[in-house]
Amino acid sequence: MTQLKINHLSRKFGHHEVLKDVSLTLEPNKIYGLLGRNGAGKSTLLNIISNRIFPSSGSVKIDDQSVIENDRLLSNMFLMSEIDMYSERMKIEKIFKQTELSYGSFDWTKARQLVQKFGVKLDAKFGGLSTGYHSIVKLIIALSVPVDYVFFDEPVLGLDANHRELFYQELLQTYEDRPRTFLISTHLIEEIAPIVEHVFILDKGKILIDGETQSIVANSYAITGPNQAVEQYTDGLNVIGHNTLGGLRTDYVYGSLDDSRVIPDTVKIEHVDLQKLFVYLTDGGDYNVEK
Amino acid sequence: MTQLKINHLSRKFGHHEVLKDVSLTLEPNKIYGLLGRNGAGKSTLLNIISNRIFPSSGSVKIDDQSVIENDRLLSNMFLMSEIDMYSERMKIEKIFKQTELSYGSFDWTKARQLVQKFGVKLDAKFGGLSTGYHSIVKLIIALSVPVDYVFFDEPVLGLDANHRELFYQELLQTYEDRPRTFLISTHLIEEIAPIVEHVFILDKGKILIDGETQSIVANSYAITGPNQAVEQYTDGLNVIGHNTLGGLRTDYVYGSLDDSRVIPDTVKIEHVDLQKLFVYLTDGGDYNVEK
Repeated sequence: MTQLKINHLSRKFGHHEVLKDVSLTLEPNKIYGLLGRNGAGKSTLLNIISNRIFPSSGSVKIDDQSVIENDRLLSNMFLMSEIDMYSERMKIEKIFKQTELSYGSFDWTKARQLVQKFGVKLDAKFGGLSTGYHSIVKLIIALSVPVDYVFFDEPVLGLDANHRELFYQELLQTYEDRPRTFLISTHLIEEIAPIVEHVFILDKGKILIDGETQSIVANSYAITGPNQAVEQYTDGLNVIGHNTLGGLRTDYVYGSLDDSRVIPDTVKIEHVDLQKLFVYLTDGGDYNVEK
Repeated sequence: MTQLKINHLSRKFGHHEVLKDVSLTLEPNKIYGLLGRNGAGKSTLLNIISNRIFPSSGSVKIDDQSVIENDRLLSNMFLMSEIDMYSERMKIEKIFKQTELSYGSFDWTKARQLVQKFGVKLDAKFGGLSTGYHSIVKLIIALSVPVDYVFFDEPVLGLDANHRELFYQELLQTYEDRPRTFLISTHLIEEIAPIVEHVFILDKGKILIDGETQSIVANSYAITGPNQAVEQYTDGLNVIGHNTLGGLRTDYVYGSLDDSRVIPDTVKIEHVDLQKLFVYLTDGGDYNVEK
């Protein structure tokens, strides 16, 4: 296995440029998070990577070969998306069999385990299931197909907390059993943060952050204290947001702090979690989020 | 304003008993959480309270009067549900006007503020909006209608992290400005926990927990240490789940710890958050969730 490389990808719908010169690399056997607000271009990106739609310009390559219309490379990818691709009247077992035919094989042992753990009925018709169970059936397929690249677009939509935990656990288990590359797009950032090694933040069609989860969080700070002390301390740092409560102020900083600065006794410095960082980075900075 | 009292409510669909003898009380001006797995009966309960469906037995009363077919009491309630009640072709502003007609008044100042903050277009047609924006339009209505009881069924479905934070913030703000009763059903338990004062956990149609959020969390423990030491310490306590990793074991306990017990040096006791407690309580206890 080699890298999957996305080079200078752009996509317009009419006059609207949904993706703007996006470049990124997926290494083999790694779990990635793709984060972005509604409308940031995440689904478009995933659809282009998996050849469901074409880019306006740019390329997606594996091993220097374009994936576009390349059946060999495409049969090594699976996209689980919000859109249901299955006939309403088809039974779950039939959907699994059809998937086996398309992909040449199917991990029935894994699928049967997951069917049992999630409480899916194999003879139920797809159309008769709830939003949550639509997601679950598609998750089971995504974890049972014989591919090296699995892309998830909102995998846990409609799932209750128990089923979300079960999914995260099964994802890590299957990754341990057979390492491959996962790219997960989700709005539940706090829950996915412990799982993803590397994060892409897409904002208004552009890559805003491309880095290891650990180092992103290590570079995210909340600086709290009396108004003046905080403003003085953070002056010139990369302040991405703030909020105030009475005389108390919190500045959110992304990037390294300046070691030469004296930290006033009244000021407290803490790390910010990935979801809070995301909210501040993608909010344009002028919107006040209370803790 | 007086209490809303639900007494011995049951509901069958065919042979399936979705709600089983549910009793609970909503005090005036309080924020409640209604938690439950998919299929636990939450939506059925909310639909019965707001008279969209009838109970098989039991009653819903305000001030000792049944709400069933009682227009005066029902016009003091609003249910925001997953089901879209609005015509696809109707414009957002028209939907607001229609709501004003049904409820006798409408807080246009609040609605216009929220429209601006969430980035809604008043002349957009409801059917043209995404899942996330369907939720947003319904949230705005729920916060602008002149009622004393607001019920939310999955209010943040499809919302990105920024819009979820904005909703929680606006909910608290409107509650401060005009106290009333909110009952919120959601799968995002960790996010709602700081907002709800009181929690109902519904499991397989029955009320499993009915208590103040703070005291529920105060009575939830994770006890971690060497296998034998933990098992010995928790013997006879209300262990609702456990997990093991090598020789290390964590037991999850709900209820008070026995003060007379000696805590071994090797054992660590921590509190568990509401979402984790929920997962253990509603999983039947036989399912192993890794941290």
